[in-house]
Amino acid sequence: MKAYEALAAHIAEYNDLLNILNTLKWDMRAKMPAGGSRSRGAQLETLSKLAKGLFVSEATERLLDAAEDESARLELDFYQARALRQTRQYYEIQKRIPADLVGRIAALSPESETVWATAKDQNDFAAFKPYLERMLAFNIELAEAIGYDEHPFDALVFQFEPGMTAASLQALFGQLKAGILPLLEKIVASDAPLPLDLWGQEYDIDRQARLCREFAALIGFDFRRGRLDIAPHPFEVSFTRDDVRITTRYDFNYLPMSLFATLHEAGHGLYEQNVSPSLTRSALTTDFLGQYAVGGASYGAHEFSSRLWENQIGRSRAFWNLHFGRLRDCFPRQMQSADADLVYRAVNRVRPSLTRVEADEVTYNLHIMLRTEIEMALLDRSITVDELPEVWNVKMDEYLGLTPPDDRRGVLQDVHWSAGTFANFPCYTIGNVMAAQVFEAARDHVPDLDQKLASGDYSSLLDWLTTAIYRHGRAYTVNELLQSISGGGLHVAPLLTYLDAKYSDLYGLK
Amino acid sequence: MKAYEALAAHIAEYNDLLNILNTLKWDMRAKMPAGGSRSRGAQLETLSKLAKGLFVSEATERLLDAAEDESARLELDFYQARALRQTRQYYEIQKRIPADLVGRIAALSPESETVWATAKDQNDFAAFKPYLERMLAFNIELAEAIGYDEHPFDALVFQFEPGMTAASLQALFGQLKAGILPLLEKIVASDAPLPLDLWGQEYDIDRQARLCREFAALIGFDFRRGRLDIAPHPFEVSFTRDDVRITTRYDFNYLPMSLFATLHEAGHGLYEQNVSPSLTRSALTTDFLGQYAVGGASYGAHEFSSRLWENQIGRSRAFWNLHFGRLRDCFPRQMQSADADLVYRAVNRVRPSLTRVEADEVTYNLHIMLRTEIEMALLDRSITVDELPEVWNVKMDEYLGLTPPDDRRGVLQDVHWSAGTFANFPCYTIGNVMAAQVFEAARDHVPDLDQKLASGDYSSLLDWLTTAIYRHGRAYTVNELLQSISGGGLHVAPLLTYLDAKYSDLYGLK
Repeated sequence: MKAYEALAAHIAEYNDLLNILNTLKWDMRAKMPAGGSRSRGAQLETLSKLAKGLFVSEATERLLDAAEDESARLELDFYQARALRQTRQYYEIQKRIPADLVGRIAALSPESETVWATAKDQNDFAAFKPYLERMLAFNIELAEAIGYDEHPFDALVFQFEPGMTAASLQALFGQLKAGILPLLEKIVASDAPLPLDLWGQEYDIDRQARLCREFAALIGFDFRRGRLDIAPHPFEVSFTRDDVRITTRYDFNYLPMSLFATLHEAGHGLYEQNVSPSLTRSALTTDFLGQYAVGGASYGAHEFSSRLWENQIGRSRAFWNLHFGRLRDCFPRQMQSADADLVYRAVNRVRPSLTRVEADEVTYNLHIMLRTEIEMALLDRSITVDELPEVWNVKMDEYLGLTPPDDRRGVLQDVHWSAGTFANFPCYTIGNVMAAQVFEAARDHVPDLDQKLASGDYSSLLDWLTTAIYRHGRAYTVNELLQSISGGGLHVAPLLTYLDAKYSDLYGLK
Repeated sequence: MKAYEALAAHIAEYNDLLNILNTLKWDMRAKMPAGGSRSRGAQLETLSKLAKGLFVSEATERLLDAAEDESARLELDFYQARALRQTRQYYEIQKRIPADLVGRIAALSPESETVWATAKDQNDFAAFKPYLERMLAFNIELAEAIGYDEHPFDALVFQFEPGMTAASLQALFGQLKAGILPLLEKIVASDAPLPLDLWGQEYDIDRQARLCREFAALIGFDFRRGRLDIAPHPFEVSFTRDDVRITTRYDFNYLPMSLFATLHEAGHGLYEQNVSPSLTRSALTTDFLGQYAVGGASYGAHEFSSRLWENQIGRSRAFWNLHFGRLRDCFPRQMQSADADLVYRAVNRVRPSLTRVEADEVTYNLHIMLRTEIEMALLDRSITVDELPEVWNVKMDEYLGLTPPDDRRGVLQDVHWSAGTFANFPCYTIGNVMAAQVFEAARDHVPDLDQKLASGDYSSLLDWLTTAIYRHGRAYTVNELLQSISGGGLHVAPLLTYLDAKYSDLYGLK
């Protein structure tokens, strides 16, 4: 298998560069002083160009050809065969993307993100608008270069969710909407005495940070191979399975912000830390823009893990029955008249709100639908960036019955577009759908799962997830993974069942 | 000047890669979890190889030739002419270094540094020994490849201190020793009641951190273009003038550790932050190993800046007269029976000690002489790594009359060799010598300098240093800089005069 090994060594160097790009981006978002954004842009541009040149090259073509020839004579193992197939597929698509486009997006993103962060702070959409227009134009150029049958969105979403299209997403969203809107209506109409606001008190940031670290470690995040830092917009990123960085943010008056962002990002981190060591450097680990994305059959598959640990675990009654004592130890004054049940209810309060990242499990997917529809309309030019704040506000009213008082809490709230990322939002909803499916399957496969979780044994679930999903990296598709654990593809029923049961109980619905 | 511009654009990309390497190294030392060291090694190896391949290439040769041809017809400005000359010089030397040697050193350094840090912690020289042996062998290979007339040290020191050799350093050290040893003897013999130990108390780390940040800002370190973090071995590194990172370390019982490390590293940072913007990306900014080193005619020239701000400013009577109140605000209990004079005396106590980074101004250069002599002996193989702890301890006794109780406080104390850096130690002493020369010149050039400093006006000094030195980056040599401000080359008299005056006063010598 000399030819395959030579290809793998070449891809390993490419992955090194992608991991370095990720390091630079982590630094940019978590550590870099504002003054560094322009020079960081130049660095990202230079390295992106080099990485692209290393991958889209005669050397790759030659190594791919040789490895394919060889694979006709010598049998590759499953992971090698998949890596070879995926490398060919990505290579053919990458070849279509103009050499300098990736570099231009990379070069603009640090400045664009910095301008976005300031514009958000100062509620100044006009300051961000020219950057958004350029990022959108880059993405339309990218979609045209990749090619598509029906909608430019299809070309872009392929890098995050292979197999999904604008049309298939609209169908999925339709089914979800049909289940969620009636439930939300009942919840809003109920007069369940849901609960006094625990959070309008003062929560010392250092104590929050200690608790976040404890919770991440509790569910299995390995700090010998990871870090937890602060970022204005929390994220997870890895520079191999042995160096996985998660971030959170702290609100002095709102404890759930940091706790659930930590559980969410640690859930992403668990995926990365548990990819098989043999896949971490030599299997192809990139999307079209040369982002590193080793763990995860798709971005949505990655999101299943974060959602599962955040929601199915972190927002469960069992979790707070077990850990309320620790919360009270940290914040005795704030928790003096609370108990486990109250905290459970307070972290599951459903209320239409303006901000995606603070949305509850019931309304969250409505935020995603809104964004995805807007992305589709921007990409096919049925709306302009100028019209965006207005369109945003109209849709917020339509889906959630709310009007943002300003763009800061409206169209400026998310980092994605400023970083040049379009067609990525639906992954969050795919993650929610998949999390419910996987958790249902885990109940079938892990004996006494609920008892184990109630006693604080998270490693049984982690071990099963590792065996069934995490260790395979990107080798299987979402549908293959779901097929192997639950005998079917992506479907919304488990999520709707889960939401209905949980919130009917919480809100005393019938 | 098309040909020159093309060369500059090429060098700018090379500099981008060097800056990225620096980012990876900063992260490795200040942030990376221990588990990441192997994969970071692979990343550093891949990128170092790419950077080297970009610089030592037909493209560079062609661009250099064209720019040199063009410069015969069109006059370059001074900085361009210097950049062209230095690029040619470094190119010719780089060509001699085997393509994979830089990569091998880069690949080993993360693991080697991690092993060193653990070995230091656990006082286990044997664990570190094989890494040191490999790093030494790499450096001997490097010296042989570069070539030298008299001593392998000469080949290596050129990258840090062009113009210096083993022989010229021994001469400089001889002059210094002749001045320092008699002064030290008088100090040790004096029975000046120098002062009760202020520091054996408890100093809250958060308050130390706030004070460090304030002091760095006070002398002009620009936090919009910089950061201050924690590292076990403090350092400064820049990723262009607009992103300069300094680090310090905190000792709960010893306040001066963090304060003076901060002033020292901020002094380095001021150099970088004040290099002319036009020199920051396109002028050649590398040493032979492809380290980024833009600011500073040499490493010793860089060290002059850190020493000047740490010692001539931070350890001056004027500084503590002005800032003692702030110190007392932060630590009222610890400072209740202290005053400015006591703090001034306590931060200038001279005492032979085991640890270089805690050494006072009088004994510091003795620590450097010891290391430099050992490096010379290791490189010419007159001693082996096996003999190193013994040789270290014998020399400590010879220079400072002390024997380290263990290797942790002996031969394992410095990071340099673990990172593959040899022949760098003399730069510290060159920095001390130059700092005294420059500060003497500043008194001549800045009207009422002492009054200004006494009133907290540090910007007059900073402005003059920027105009006279910082802004030029690497364009001038140390001797040219010193010639332009004080009419002579590097000489020890100003340092000896400064030490003699300051410590004769402090210790009541006559």
